[in-house]
Amino acid sequence: MPEVYVYAVEGRTLDQKRALVKDVTDAVVRHFKVKPEAVMVQIVESSRESKAKGGFLFSDRPPG
Amino acid sequence: MPEVYVYAVEGRTLDQKRALVKDVTDAVVRHFKVKPEAVMVQIVESSRESKAKGGFLFSDRPPG
Amino acid sequence: MPEVYVYAVEGRTLDQKRALVKDVTDAVVRHFKVKPEAVMVQIVESSRESKAKGGFLFSDRPPG
Amino acid sequence: MPEVYVYAVEGRTLDQKRALVKDVTDAVVRHFKVKPEAVMVQIVESSRESKAKGGFLFSDRPPG
Amino acid sequence: MPEVYVYAVEGRTLDQKRALVKDVTDAVVRHFKVKPEAVMVQIVESSRESKAKGGFLFSDRPPG
Amino acid sequence: MPEVYVYAVEGRTLDQKRALVKDVTDAVVRHFKVKPEAVMVQIVESSRESKAKGGFLFSDRPPG
Repeated sequence: MPEVYVYAVEGRTLDQKRALVKDVTDAVVRHFKVKPEAVMVQIVESSRESKAKGGFLFSDRPPG
Repeated sequence: MPEVYVYAVEGRTLDQKRALVKDVTDAVVRHFKVKPEAVMVQIVESSRESKAKGGFLFSDRPPG
Repeated sequence: MPEVYVYAVEGRTLDQKRALVKDVTDAVVRHFKVKPEAVMVQIVESSRESKAKGGFLFSDRPPG
Repeated sequence: MPEVYVYAVEGRTLDQKRALVKDVTDAVVRHFKVKPEAVMVQIVESSRESKAKGGFLFSDRPPG
Repeated sequence: MPEVYVYAVEGRTLDQKRALVKDVTDAVVRHFKVKPEAVMVQIVESSRESKAKGGFLFSDRPPG
Repeated sequence: MPEVYVYAVEGRTLDQKRALVKDVTDAVVRHFKVKPEAVMVQIVESSRESKAKGGFLFSDRPPG
């Protein structure tokens, strides 16, 4: 409590995930006044074939 | 904005996903008055061993 | 099954919601080959003070 | 309806999942007065590299 | 950890919620081998105008 | 993309929410290499009667 879920397309490195959960947790602790141990962060990754923007799957979109 | 999540048992083809995200996006654009680029759709698949109906995992249920 | 969640800022009318869940359900039925009664759609609304884009709450963003 | 999502770190056996969805479904049926067939339970697993507590990924935390 | 979310149409009493979270927590503790304090359960209620089955909002469906 | 959901018990002020979404967005931009406008953050609040830890609703737990 609180629990944070980050939905993203797969492909981030372990270092990127490690840094993200650290900074997100710090932000929750600082602004919502909870202890770090109370904060859960889960990164929910999806393949590029399962996520879309503007009606087109990421696997069908041009890069950039 | 808006964001749409479709939770389903795994097994759909890329063509099925492509068609679904297109039509779902169109529906959101048409009825909620937003631009297509504002609509995100993510399909969250689960294995048949991780989803249940009526108290029984899909992997334990008879087909049909 | 499948279950669909639409996260949106509050403010849509009942008619808009009625039309959206109808068309989204039809899309799932058509492309994922399930019966209509198997499809659940839930619209999860949030206030403009609880949703942000680009780091700014919708209540702090200029309209348009 | 209702739909239940259990977010957990991966690693549970099929027997553990089977027993969990059975008992969770029974609890929903008993207290929320719905038929078993109306209850959906999905277990959303994540790797230890994608879930954190206290700002640290499970893969970086000591066991226990 | 684990975190459990129960999506339901609004209208349950406090006693029903109290009993549900107790039994769901017990089920997670028993089968997933975690301590009770590690289990979070959140009931996400929606109005009958924001949830649909079979393409029709609950507020438009006949009772029963 | 990415989308972030923060599940919390209700009661935070507008200033707390404003500060949280800003810092969470910054963290995602910094570590996941996306533009700020691509980041959505939604705070999903629940009443103390709808969220539990250790099998007990927050409304039934002693403060602190």
